[in-house]
Amino acid sequence: MRYEIRLSGMGGQGLLLAGIIVAEAAMAQGKNVVQTASYGPESRGGASRSEVIISEKAIDYPAVIEADYLLAMTQEATDKFFHEVKPHGIALLDSTWVKEIPAGNVESTYYFPLTETAIEKFEKAIFANIIGLGIICESSKIVEPDYLIAALLDRVPKRYKEMNQVAFETGIELFTNGKIPKGVAGQAVETV
Amino acid sequence: MRYEIRLSGMGGQGLLLAGIIVAEAAMAQGKNVVQTASYGPESRGGASRSEVIISEKAIDYPAVIEADYLLAMTQEATDKFFHEVKPHGIALLDSTWVKEIPAGNVESTYYFPLTETAIEKFEKAIFANIIGLGIICESSKIVEPDYLIAALLDRVPKRYKEMNQVAFETGIELFTNGKIPKGVAGQAVETV
Repeated sequence: MRYEIRLSGMGGQGLLLAGIIVAEAAMAQGKNVVQTASYGPESRGGASRSEVIISEKAIDYPAVIEADYLLAMTQEATDKFFHEVKPHGIALLDSTWVKEIPAGNVESTYYFPLTETAIEKFEKAIFANIIGLGIICESSKIVEPDYLIAALLDRVPKRYKEMNQVAFETGIELFTNGKIPKGVAGQAVETV
Repeated sequence: MRYEIRLSGMGGQGLLLAGIIVAEAAMAQGKNVVQTASYGPESRGGASRSEVIISEKAIDYPAVIEADYLLAMTQEATDKFFHEVKPHGIALLDSTWVKEIPAGNVESTYYFPLTETAIEKFEKAIFANIIGLGIICESSKIVEPDYLIAALLDRVPKRYKEMNQVAFETGIELFTNGKIPKGVAGQAVETV
């Protein structure tokens, strides 16, 4: 009934925007949602974290207790949060920045160069978060793609709408076509 | 040590943006900050709420318990949240939308037509939130104006930067020059 998503990495990776888009899409689907961004001493070192709680019922505690879904876009975020994922949860790690997958029990760990793919396809690292959103959407099934696309297009500047939509659909396609390899906990994995 | 700000009203009033700006300004000042936006069944009726917790220390509970500062931009938000302000707290009510001030013990209740002022000055209601931010900044002293302006300019599109800065400074000036009248709890007050 309660689903917890944690998006973590560093400033400039668009994690707050990604969280707001997921939150607004889930709300449009009629869910209760709390979106949170935390800025702390760690932020001064560049760390960034955004969380979304989605529930059919009223949300009493507005923070992630144990994530159902973790997106980690830096090694630091991975080391910090990988152990706070539910055993049956999912972790998506950006292999552009994450070189070591911690040992652990996370059932599904996906390991893919989000940032390199964004640079190759769009010449802009900033689209890595949106490719990630497509993968999250398809692998979690927690929010419907149409609602996510609508929320995304509502939040980005007009001149970037099309590129954002393509980035999102890229994530969906990569996942659907089995192009997102599973990472093996406790070791580094070669990326495709 | 812990300061709680609640920004409440309806969708389209820019309360999430205002919360993010306060959060990023406080972070730039070296504080620990948690920014939260809640979307619930009430949101489907148009209600919107954004909260910011600012602390020198780590923030253990990431939601408003009793606000130090309430911005309420609708009657509904006022009726819902006015009683969750600390006795020595501050409430800023947008008299364009709030026609009755609830009875209560809030020490400082300011009552000012934020939305009408935004329309008169900028021909756009959407600047009401930024005028409000200027008033909050000046009446709470919780974040320094320079940091708020920097965070504001960092978050708004280039072509609206100047208008946003003027809107923010308008709020500061209105407060500094004593143009923001005190509302009297338990009654409606004529606006200036």
